[in-house]
Amino acid sequence: MQKKLVEVCYTPGGYDYYKGNFEIVVVIDVLRATSAICSAIHNGVKSLIPVSTIEEAKAYQDKGYLVGAERQGQIVSGFDFGNSPYSYMKPEIKGKDIVLSTTNGTRAINIAKDAETVVIGALSNLDYLINWLKDQDKNVLCLCSGWKDKFNLEDSICGGAIAEGLLKTGKFISNEDASVAAKYLYLAAKDNYFGFLKSSSHRRRLKKLNLNEDIKFCLTPNQMEVIPILKGDRLVKLDT
Amino acid sequence: MQKKLVEVCYTPGGYDYYKGNFEIVVVIDVLRATSAICSAIHNGVKSLIPVSTIEEAKAYQDKGYLVGAERQGQIVSGFDFGNSPYSYMKPEIKGKDIVLSTTNGTRAINIAKDAETVVIGALSNLDYLINWLKDQDKNVLCLCSGWKDKFNLEDSICGGAIAEGLLKTGKFISNEDASVAAKYLYLAAKDNYFGFLKSSSHRRRLKKLNLNEDIKFCLTPNQMEVIPILKGDRLVKLDT
Repeated sequence: MQKKLVEVCYTPGGYDYYKGNFEIVVVIDVLRATSAICSAIHNGVKSLIPVSTIEEAKAYQDKGYLVGAERQGQIVSGFDFGNSPYSYMKPEIKGKDIVLSTTNGTRAINIAKDAETVVIGALSNLDYLINWLKDQDKNVLCLCSGWKDKFNLEDSICGGAIAEGLLKTGKFISNEDASVAAKYLYLAAKDNYFGFLKSSSHRRRLKKLNLNEDIKFCLTPNQMEVIPILKGDRLVKLDT
Repeated sequence: MQKKLVEVCYTPGGYDYYKGNFEIVVVIDVLRATSAICSAIHNGVKSLIPVSTIEEAKAYQDKGYLVGAERQGQIVSGFDFGNSPYSYMKPEIKGKDIVLSTTNGTRAINIAKDAETVVIGALSNLDYLINWLKDQDKNVLCLCSGWKDKFNLEDSICGGAIAEGLLKTGKFISNEDASVAAKYLYLAAKDNYFGFLKSSSHRRRLKKLNLNEDIKFCLTPNQMEVIPILKGDRLVKLDT
């Protein structure tokens, strides 16, 4: 059997280079959008509608949807919640369709939406996702959301974890240096994500906003067996 | 004394984000342009004129200059040499002005040329360069040439080495995740650059072209005490 590719793209801005060569795109925004999305779908939210702009989010709100909107790490004034995973675990949102717009993560999802399959990755669903990906026999691109089109540490480490998980099955190869580096960063970080990411710029940003509980949650791997998948314009639970 | 910044930018395409905030830009293209430039200046070449395009290189050749031109790792047909460091150590080129155009490195130099100071970094002049930088009291950006605007491992590791060298003086800080990651990659690679970079895509590319001797040379740190600096449109030896 021919080996499949697994690569890590550090930023949405870098996606053009990879576009078209990967049947599966895994969108990653560990702090906090994709961690929140996994939590929501795991906790029974029916679907999440990712939108790029606040204007789109507002339009949905006007139609009666619950809307999460975050910019610069904070809830956008006038919306129901931001992107704290804890906001998406409340019993009252079970079974609902919720709209979500975040600084980086929802933009990455929308950039990737022409791919054959778009799924959501985070540390919280890491092993479950890797286990599913390794049986698909498809080329896999881990698309990091980054921070305003710059490299970020936590997304790259999560991408490196997925790459390493697939490479060690022997069924995948990586050709790009970015993927090799992401794998090394994961191997350096894996025994202590929290400690390793002390120096991450976004962790410092969120800590200033008193979001340490969120950070701890997002950096704890393998808390849930769930894969959110994009169907049309909505993220729903993949039946595995 | 206020601490100065040291950051690592992975690609010329990412330079816009950093532009204007750093008095000193260190251009890095370990395999092989900046290693060759250090060798040339160390071995008595009077100046190197970096040009971005083959057309510019040809125009200089027509005026009688010796010209090095490399694309895709190979000497461009019709020119005197490519970017093997060994080509620039020949006694007959001492005292000469030489023109150089390479796939990535000379492009990065030209992108950075509006900075107050542009110097050339490689593993071959690593400690000597760090030692000079730490006494300048200026913000330092390590600009990696990458490979066709993608991240590459060897340049990022060299940038990480410079960042780490400056950070440990206590006189510098890094704010960006890209710099933190580059530093980690350097720490993982530093005891065995050659082994660590086995998986680098450009090393594989050059190995196919039978350039293993060049690779070994470029990955051997601290071979020379030289800093090439851009003065006008020419790289010359910095008097330290």
